Amino acid sequence: MLSNYKRKIYYHDTDCGGVVYYGNYLKYIEEARTDIFEQLGFSLKELAEKEDTLFVAARQEIDYKSPAHYGDILDIKTWVEEIGRVKVWFVHEIKDQGGKEIAVAKTLIVFVDSKINKKRIPEPVSKRLREILVKKDA
Amino acid sequence: MLSNYKRKIYYHDTDCGGVVYYGNYLKYIEEARTDIFEQLGFSLKELAEKEDTLFVAARQEIDYKSPAHYGDILDIKTWVEEIGRVKVWFVHEIKDQGGKEIAVAKTLIVFVDSKINKKRIPEPVSKRLREILVKKDA
Amino acid sequence: MLSNYKRKIYYHDTDCGGVVYYGNYLKYIEEARTDIFEQLGFSLKELAEKEDTLFVAARQEIDYKSPAHYGDILDIKTWVEEIGRVKVWFVHEIKDQGGKEIAVAKTLIVFVDSKINKKRIPEPVSKRLREILVKKDA
Amino acid sequence: MLSNYKRKIYYHDTDCGGVVYYGNYLKYIEEARTDIFEQLGFSLKELAEKEDTLFVAARQEIDYKSPAHYGDILDIKTWVEEIGRVKVWFVHEIKDQGGKEIAVAKTLIVFVDSKINKKRIPEPVSKRLREILVKKDA
Repeated sequence: MLSNYKRKIYYHDTDCGGVVYYGNYLKYIEEARTDIFEQLGFSLKELAEKEDTLFVAARQEIDYKSPAHYGDILDIKTWVEEIGRVKVWFVHEIKDQGGKEIAVAKTLIVFVDSKINKKRIPEPVSKRLREILVKKDA
Repeated sequence: MLSNYKRKIYYHDTDCGGVVYYGNYLKYIEEARTDIFEQLGFSLKELAEKEDTLFVAARQEIDYKSPAHYGDILDIKTWVEEIGRVKVWFVHEIKDQGGKEIAVAKTLIVFVDSKINKKRIPEPVSKRLREILVKKDA
Repeated sequence: MLSNYKRKIYYHDTDCGGVVYYGNYLKYIEEARTDIFEQLGFSLKELAEKEDTLFVAARQEIDYKSPAHYGDILDIKTWVEEIGRVKVWFVHEIKDQGGKEIAVAKTLIVFVDSKINKKRIPEPVSKRLREILVKKDA
Repeated sequence: MLSNYKRKIYYHDTDCGGVVYYGNYLKYIEEARTDIFEQLGFSLKELAEKEDTLFVAARQEIDYKSPAHYGDILDIKTWVEEIGRVKVWFVHEIKDQGGKEIAVAKTLIVFVDSKINKKRIPEPVSKRLREILVKKDA
């Protein structure tokens, strides 16, 4: 199961180079991850409040393939490439409405408690995340 | 006493219209207010932590006179136009490095406690804010 | 006819005060205006490219009624309050999913050509904008 | 020669997790790169207008070490790790005012013309960029 998130590009997403600002893609993939957690049945708010479980980004990699423009509707496919006790690698493939590859991003997420100490991924979360696991060599 | 805050414009400040995005000016005047509080001897962080005193924007007005561009260095002059028991009207006049008027903004700030109940402006803060008071008819 | 635009609030929309950053509402109402133009049958991109017609914000007013939070889904109702030869006042009423009023914003838009000279609103655009006109005293 | 860029953290830089939003660091390093170009004697605006030379980000890597907070003053040290005919790897080391490591970022920049075709780095630019070259193994 892969998740698809659609994101329309507005004026505030772009810069005076005429294309989407390179830093803004990190917002869109954050949105995609938030939505995928909801699709899997978890609210980040509830995880934080009820289970003292948060996550933070530990590493971000992104390859910019082709610029996106005002008016584009981006399609973001998200999956898990690797999952451990406390860490998850998410992959996000971003294409435009014509299927052109815009960017590929990988985010390393670390689960923590509210004091930012590493914390084991809760079993129900881990189980659901494995459902969107696509191994690199697969 | 008026405060001057310099703000350089970078790529991320602009949009594909080639000018500074209209919503970003609210960031620059927030920065100017933060700095003026520091110049007056107050840290917003300490006010929040030690005196349970915060403030929120209740109303914003801004007139856009001329667009600012990438590479501009904006000069933001800030003063208080009106101050009451719980409310302060800040005025921000934004010009570019050539003295051209870019925008004039007025922000109504309301002091609150951490539960967002209105709260009297602490006397030392109020006293210092009166030092940058310039009445409208003056 | 009024337009409704739904906007979900993500982490990047908020600030460390725990609520939506006051400047970000200007993004959401820009999104709502863009979408209403499309619903009325106009693409801002085509207006710019084919008719040398753009618009810029000349004045913004916004009253902040209640803070929005991470996870909220904002509902933005947009209409035209006044329309002249070159200017349009848009009103945006922002509520959360529970119907609580978050903010009311008014944006004065001025139509210009690509050299930023004022320009008469094209008749087909003006005609359609009148369809979402709700006079203040009405 | 290494460049140091200071960046103060304001409310709009943070999110409701109480720390700087992970995507915003890409703004700060863009600012640092812009300033280093100016220190080396080049204006990005002039390169674009007079020499039809721009650059775009082709890849971004960033390791988040420790979160930055509202009120922090970040210190960003920037250097070149590798430079070829059309590509440059910039490294940005971000610390807070206490010397704590916040993040380390690497950006791969590709020089292009205004049609986004790859373009040889102009010799005067290349020469100056080599002055801030610090090889990985050095």
